[in-house]
Amino acid sequence: MIDAPRIDALQYANWSRKVFEQMRAGGLDAVHVTIAYHESFREAVLNVEAWHRLFERHADLILHGRDVTDIDRARETGRTAILFGFQNPSPIEDDIGLLQVWHDLGLRVMQLTYNNQSLLASGCYEAEDTGLTRMGREVVAEMNRLGLLIDMSHSADRSTIEAAERSTRPIAITHANPATWHPARRNKSDAVIRAVTQAGGMLGFSLYPHHLKGGTACTLRDFCDMVARTAETYGVDRLGIGSDLCQDQPDSVVEWMRSGRWTKAVDYGEGSADAPGFPPQPGWFTDNRDVPGLAAGLRAVGFSAAETDAIMGGNWYRFFAEAFAPA
Amino acid sequence: MIDAPRIDALQYANWSRKVFEQMRAGGLDAVHVTIAYHESFREAVLNVEAWHRLFERHADLILHGRDVTDIDRARETGRTAILFGFQNPSPIEDDIGLLQVWHDLGLRVMQLTYNNQSLLASGCYEAEDTGLTRMGREVVAEMNRLGLLIDMSHSADRSTIEAAERSTRPIAITHANPATWHPARRNKSDAVIRAVTQAGGMLGFSLYPHHLKGGTACTLRDFCDMVARTAETYGVDRLGIGSDLCQDQPDSVVEWMRSGRWTKAVDYGEGSADAPGFPPQPGWFTDNRDVPGLAAGLRAVGFSAAETDAIMGGNWYRFFAEAFAPA
Repeated sequence: MIDAPRIDALQYANWSRKVFEQMRAGGLDAVHVTIAYHESFREAVLNVEAWHRLFERHADLILHGRDVTDIDRARETGRTAILFGFQNPSPIEDDIGLLQVWHDLGLRVMQLTYNNQSLLASGCYEAEDTGLTRMGREVVAEMNRLGLLIDMSHSADRSTIEAAERSTRPIAITHANPATWHPARRNKSDAVIRAVTQAGGMLGFSLYPHHLKGGTACTLRDFCDMVARTAETYGVDRLGIGSDLCQDQPDSVVEWMRSGRWTKAVDYGEGSADAPGFPPQPGWFTDNRDVPGLAAGLRAVGFSAAETDAIMGGNWYRFFAEAFAPA
Repeated sequence: MIDAPRIDALQYANWSRKVFEQMRAGGLDAVHVTIAYHESFREAVLNVEAWHRLFERHADLILHGRDVTDIDRARETGRTAILFGFQNPSPIEDDIGLLQVWHDLGLRVMQLTYNNQSLLASGCYEAEDTGLTRMGREVVAEMNRLGLLIDMSHSADRSTIEAAERSTRPIAITHANPATWHPARRNKSDAVIRAVTQAGGMLGFSLYPHHLKGGTACTLRDFCDMVARTAETYGVDRLGIGSDLCQDQPDSVVEWMRSGRWTKAVDYGEGSADAPGFPPQPGWFTDNRDVPGLAAGLRAVGFSAAETDAIMGGNWYRFFAEAFAPA
């Protein structure tokens, strides 16, 4: 018996009816999807248009989620609510007024940076982390006013901590793991997780192999043990899943994620010249049908049914209800 | 005692707190405002951003109206609901997917043409009227699906009649008068008004001097007599007001309306080289405070209180309720 919605706080699949059917098969009631990495305003609008067509064509499986009542409606009608997010602020360009425009178009989550320096803050791959910029501070305030969730998954430490401190609403790291478990560039230090969670924010555990100890070979047990230790440190109510699932994507997509238009060379990001593509997922989490197995893995390491429900979506639901509410 | 909302179905003022205060003084519960004439997609988004700032700064006077429940809310809180419309389809460019994007941004009314040929239909100043184009027919269907009202105020006759016939929802001429009263290029033939109203559509009477018999010298009595005759011909329930009030605008704005970027010469439209600017309004309708006087004028020519309420907004309210409802 599942008493809370099941929510994945980050996916970027090659969207298809098959993927949406697998969301249903896996019992997901809501998924936060990425609709832009490096896109301009107009390019990201084209992505919204593509989603409008998906919502029309697959209205029996998905709906556009604008607040948690849409997640309720999805559960009641056996569908999955799709929440829009940007991994990078490029679609607001240099225009703070576009935040409200994007909010009207259904955006609910935005990362202030994606690996690199943005107009707003520093990314986790920059040598220098200068914290929030002048525009970054204005954007934090405007996102707080509108009910747009600030996501710092790909940001640098100081920038993240400043955002957590400056934001009047709790912020999130939708998809990353503790660096104490696996010291990847994209995983988060204790200081960062503490700053975010102590301010009421959330950490979503990533299932992207580069964020896992042992990579593709990481076992479900290893992963769930890590979740258990993280819960002991920061509290079970601050934790969720943000799988970072990039199902069915060609490797050209991970090239776009990493290199966008900002370099003429190839940036391998978390990969390498020897392994430039998407890494293979662990066998126990290859698509959305594996969500129930993840829940079972949490139960197996000692989480109660209520704690498992909380981590598998109840916490995101409670958090989104406040994060998306108008000021 | 006013039993229906007071609605003006077309204004393009130089928006200011003064104008919004005058809307309140005149008792207007809703105004359909033009947010684009010749603007590209991005330029029209900038206009939306400017409106967002107006809604924030003047939240005690105005609110963004997305459906008739917002008009109810405006009445209950002593404010005016602002409904967005385009006079030209330029902000959808060549992309039908932008219609839903604009609907999400709060657009509720769009003219298929503005004087000239558009990608969708022929304007009333073209020598040839070829009716709806291929894209025009697709756009009519998509506007029907979304609940975007088709406005043919500046369109040519055949195009208007085809739109009325092809649209599955009633359409509107938000701002024009019968050509039988004053044969201006922008006023509408009996055949056009009949096609629109017999299909359940609406005609909004214009108070723009070029649309008035006698121009600026037209009297309130003359205008209201014309309304009475029009009601006898087409039925009182198909009529409303669309004042076309362009208050406080410099003459450079009427130049933009007429010439946009489509000509290097000056197009004088309804004006002339001798009188290229905005014509002076009749003394009895210079700003929104004159709305009650207009209602009194309708009573003076014999309309009952209920009929006056209907023409002054009740009809638009009933019509908008259906026009804006999702399919």
